[in-house]
Amino acid sequence: MQLGNIMLASAIRTIPDYPRPGILFRDITTLLGDARAFRKAVDELVQPFVGAKISKVAGIEARGFILGGAVAHQLSSGFTPVRKRGKLPAATLRQTYALEYGEDEVEIHTDAVSPGESVLLVDDLIATGGTAEAAVKLLRQAGANVVGAAFVINLPDLGGAQRIAAIGVPVHALVAFPGH
Amino acid sequence: MQLGNIMLASAIRTIPDYPRPGILFRDITTLLGDARAFRKAVDELVQPFVGAKISKVAGIEARGFILGGAVAHQLSSGFTPVRKRGKLPAATLRQTYALEYGEDEVEIHTDAVSPGESVLLVDDLIATGGTAEAAVKLLRQAGANVVGAAFVINLPDLGGAQRIAAIGVPVHALVAFPGH
Repeated sequence: MQLGNIMLASAIRTIPDYPRPGILFRDITTLLGDARAFRKAVDELVQPFVGAKISKVAGIEARGFILGGAVAHQLSSGFTPVRKRGKLPAATLRQTYALEYGEDEVEIHTDAVSPGESVLLVDDLIATGGTAEAAVKLLRQAGANVVGAAFVINLPDLGGAQRIAAIGVPVHALVAFPGH
Repeated sequence: MQLGNIMLASAIRTIPDYPRPGILFRDITTLLGDARAFRKAVDELVQPFVGAKISKVAGIEARGFILGGAVAHQLSSGFTPVRKRGKLPAATLRQTYALEYGEDEVEIHTDAVSPGESVLLVDDLIATGGTAEAAVKLLRQAGANVVGAAFVINLPDLGGAQRIAAIGVPVHALVAFPGH
């Protein structure tokens, strides 16, 4: 079952029991590999934000780098990476967030954004929203105005979109898989 | 010291003693964060290949995803990821390559390219060329015609560009740091 853009939804491959039994993994590599679907996804990701004067896109490692790089190019903006701990070479800001079991950490460079800069957060998928919330906190700590968060896929049953909206960031997703 | 595009070279930050003492790390996050430099880098990366009818860009994890996503968007092509072992959800082809100490592995999906498809390989930097060579082998194994390999940075003393040229793939790099 899916809601949203049917052409994009049909370009997403579903892999049962990955990475664990019982999980339906939504694989966007088939969408990215289809030139028309990739272009359409980028067009639709930026659509609500074209008047927002976004000067930087923040992409979340690793699939958010692919889409975020393309979205930044489409918007003629800069790009800044949100990376897992220990991957960025200069001074960083770090945020810890909870996983289903344990916790994880993401980082941005301290100079990733300029104070007051309008930033669009991009990733391939929003599930619980833990990583996205941590990214928003980091970007705000660096002085960014996070004008929105854009995802190809939303798993609405996991509540991530509401969680990000609740901290004041408009969420835009192209395809939803209820019941994931 | 650097050779090549001066505007792009000056947008690259050099971090001494990272990740180990004695290494000068070339950090492209400052280039990516500068909207004009990012756009110029993408324009220059694709420039030799605009007539080559590239239908897919292969980007190498992780920084090659950012540039590769933007290059694919610029060329209106598809994108396929070259990932570290164990990150891709469907059936893969795998290639082992030597590191300074030990070895590493990269993968692509078995359906990453169509037979005969013209593919451009993209990464941020070429050093020894080990990862790029493994990526070329994988793409060819899947049936791709690898029409070129494009990098923002070349460290010419490490010989990677010659290594890739020697297996029949034209190499294009925007900035060289001799003596790295």
